[in-house]
Amino acid sequence: MSPTSKTPRDAYRDLERRFERMNLVRDAATVLEWDAATFMPDGGADARADQLATLRVLRHELLTDAALEDLLGRAGDADLDAWERANLHEMRRERLHATAVPSSLVEARSQALSACEMRWRTARKDDDFAGLLSSFEEVLKLTREVAAAKSASLGVSPYDALLDEWEPGGRAADIDVVFASIEGFLPSLVERVLERQASRPSLAQPVGPFAPERQRALADRVMRALGFDFAHGRLDVSAHPFCIGVPDDVRITTRWDEADFANGLFGVIHETGHALYERGLPVRWRKQPVGQARGMSTHESQSLLFEMQASRSPEFVGWLAGVAREIFGGSGAAWSAEALLQRVQRVERSLIRIDADEVTYPLHVVLRYRLERAMIAGDLPLRDLPGAFADGMERLLGVRPPNHRDGSLQDIHWPSGTFGYFPTYTLGALTAAQLFAAAVQQAPAIPAGLAAGDARPLTAWLVEHVHALGASIAPGEIVSRATGEPLNPEVFRRHLEHRYLST
Amino acid sequence: MSPTSKTPRDAYRDLERRFERMNLVRDAATVLEWDAATFMPDGGADARADQLATLRVLRHELLTDAALEDLLGRAGDADLDAWERANLHEMRRERLHATAVPSSLVEARSQALSACEMRWRTARKDDDFAGLLSSFEEVLKLTREVAAAKSASLGVSPYDALLDEWEPGGRAADIDVVFASIEGFLPSLVERVLERQASRPSLAQPVGPFAPERQRALADRVMRALGFDFAHGRLDVSAHPFCIGVPDDVRITTRWDEADFANGLFGVIHETGHALYERGLPVRWRKQPVGQARGMSTHESQSLLFEMQASRSPEFVGWLAGVAREIFGGSGAAWSAEALLQRVQRVERSLIRIDADEVTYPLHVVLRYRLERAMIAGDLPLRDLPGAFADGMERLLGVRPPNHRDGSLQDIHWPSGTFGYFPTYTLGALTAAQLFAAAVQQAPAIPAGLAAGDARPLTAWLVEHVHALGASIAPGEIVSRATGEPLNPEVFRRHLEHRYLST
Repeated sequence: MSPTSKTPRDAYRDLERRFERMNLVRDAATVLEWDAATFMPDGGADARADQLATLRVLRHELLTDAALEDLLGRAGDADLDAWERANLHEMRRERLHATAVPSSLVEARSQALSACEMRWRTARKDDDFAGLLSSFEEVLKLTREVAAAKSASLGVSPYDALLDEWEPGGRAADIDVVFASIEGFLPSLVERVLERQASRPSLAQPVGPFAPERQRALADRVMRALGFDFAHGRLDVSAHPFCIGVPDDVRITTRWDEADFANGLFGVIHETGHALYERGLPVRWRKQPVGQARGMSTHESQSLLFEMQASRSPEFVGWLAGVAREIFGGSGAAWSAEALLQRVQRVERSLIRIDADEVTYPLHVVLRYRLERAMIAGDLPLRDLPGAFADGMERLLGVRPPNHRDGSLQDIHWPSGTFGYFPTYTLGALTAAQLFAAAVQQAPAIPAGLAAGDARPLTAWLVEHVHALGASIAPGEIVSRATGEPLNPEVFRRHLEHRYLST
Repeated sequence: MSPTSKTPRDAYRDLERRFERMNLVRDAATVLEWDAATFMPDGGADARADQLATLRVLRHELLTDAALEDLLGRAGDADLDAWERANLHEMRRERLHATAVPSSLVEARSQALSACEMRWRTARKDDDFAGLLSSFEEVLKLTREVAAAKSASLGVSPYDALLDEWEPGGRAADIDVVFASIEGFLPSLVERVLERQASRPSLAQPVGPFAPERQRALADRVMRALGFDFAHGRLDVSAHPFCIGVPDDVRITTRWDEADFANGLFGVIHETGHALYERGLPVRWRKQPVGQARGMSTHESQSLLFEMQASRSPEFVGWLAGVAREIFGGSGAAWSAEALLQRVQRVERSLIRIDADEVTYPLHVVLRYRLERAMIAGDLPLRDLPGAFADGMERLLGVRPPNHRDGSLQDIHWPSGTFGYFPTYTLGALTAAQLFAAAVQQAPAIPAGLAAGDARPLTAWLVEHVHALGASIAPGEIVSRATGEPLNPEVFRRHLEHRYLST
């Protein structure tokens, strides 16, 4: 049958077959990425880069195949159910992102990103912003060209076009409102939290070293308590923790800190949240675009819901302290639930975003959001970035980076061309707070479950209200349906005030 | 530039690009296969099968792309050097194998193989040949159709067409001569070896259990001695030992036998031989067909050269016994080099091919070769296979299988459609003996190196005379050039007589 004689239903079926293939190629690539970060010997890096590049190009060719244009048009006339229609919408979105940018620009940018990423590693180590500048400027220039091209295709602003890759359908106008609210209440809230914290006695903490095997045993126990299924996933060690895989085989990684077991453990809990989301995606749609996770803010909401909301709750910490005592053989006040709670609810003004606690973290993100919007708009020349970054840190967080390394050079995102990603961290944190509050209200068994080391009531609620929806509706719609109102920073504020100022 | 306006040189360059891509897709698939056999959780099996099938189909489509026909024709007029010409030859061979069989037959056979392999696992366990028969007959029927189709395309007999997949350019007529020689001298040689062995005192052996960590430490030490570079490879554990990967990242696996450390260790040495071959392939041609290993007999020659020739030599065993004593903390006569030599040179008439020693192994292979030729020729109905198998075992090896499990059901090869592979085991063993004899004669430093736990003189010789040739010449030509004569079973015979009857 020639493409033009296809019925709309046949066209839709053909699209499902094609996107299934694309998704399987991407899934295959994730195995190569996982291996590269865990078990691959160093000498295999170049060969692995070639293999991954080949899979990416093959997938890109499948996605930009000219035949898809006609199929996507015809399938629109088919009598599709809601999931199929959402699937078709996601297919079009993926296709738009892939075809909006001329391949010469994709290629030029890809080379610029590799060069800039490599240079960033050296520049950060040597605290040498000037040494990165020309390479960084090339990346920004080409990223702005990509944003302009996608803006034309998607019919949104250049920044929103970049944002759409990570936060499908996201709009800076909406984020502005949310972030303005955070910027309004959070600096003074941090102030009050720190004053209150300083006024209270500091409890003694367990003293390491904590053997990695024992930390691993604790992590296994906690992962099982949260519902991680080791018949469908693994925990390994890597330089940077991550979660990758497919619903039936989700791999997470961590690193062990022998001086403080909470670091590795809460990293594991964070990645477990990501893993449970992947595992809970709708079985029927696993190989289709609509069966994938709903963007980065929703993904981050799932990791933060476990890491920040559930696992730092007094209920769960009570159970966790007992398990930690058992596994490490600890006893005494330093191993009490109170001491552990104090440890995992510690707040401080810090320079490094990835080490920040849940209270101060959004301020790091608000700063980056303001700066990257200005960069994409052409309003912030890169030579002025370090100063703007330091000024912003001082204004929002009350600390000023003494160097580039702990200032504007600390994150790999911009040098690797990732703009429009930062806001998803905080949208995720707000979403987590709002979902958790609603879950506890709707399913009162949740806190009792957490107190007994049983997250099944919580996970069941999340599967129903988030995971099983896949990408069938917009991120904001997931929040509205699950909680009864749109994303509301006041819920996050109430969470912080309750946890850090009321007890 | 349209394909028809390409110069012959451009056509050749285009082919190199296309085959590089195909090889990278295949390399990517090997990472998925390795992971599936080592670290993948059981629940990931179905998803992995889908990913692998997708990569295989993509590669097949690249190889059967209609545009290749014209390119392969035009490139033949280019002014190519010897390596490029050999590369073009290998491209044509791969393409012929891929296009010779109609896709409907490929598909039907692929389904029959999956079904038969699964049924074989049950049938072997239950000793139920009758339960496998109809599924096995379907596989044989479709394999004979494939052989007929390839026979027409390659211009060789149906059996030789199957053989060509594993032994490029191999001919049953040549194998007949070699195997007739083996069948002539080996049964009586086995008889004499066993008589002599029985006449000598049996030395006490070290008694286990041998902890896997210690076995692993010994294996690491031996692998390093043989030249394995852990910056470019790994050793892991799997149910069935194998070697897989790319030259810069070669992965081998083993399993540990706590009762007898020599089992796991010599398995590791075998796979190390395969790994060194992959690692030594010509750097310039890694991504091209001519840069791949030269078929299975040559590959097996490299594993057996280390496992049987070098590592069972008195020189190496002397060094190895010292290292084993050190690592296991052993002492006394049971840990002497003499005892270890007796252990690794033990000969017996056994039922199971994969457990056989180097003296009896070729008789297992000769039997399978005779039987599979008869099956492909249509001269041996499968219902008669168990009887023919048992009769052959009795005639060649003097033992008769008491059941199907240890008889014709012991190997997965035929139920999984693999015909024409078995002879490569013994061609490899003969090649190993002939190469090792030549190497020692040409490089007298080899035995002294082995005695000191240093295989560099041996590996250097192999890289020069075998590894670095890739697939640029035929397997037989590698042997002739390296040793000064074609493959000669007399050299293997002399090796066995020297090792098992003269000392």
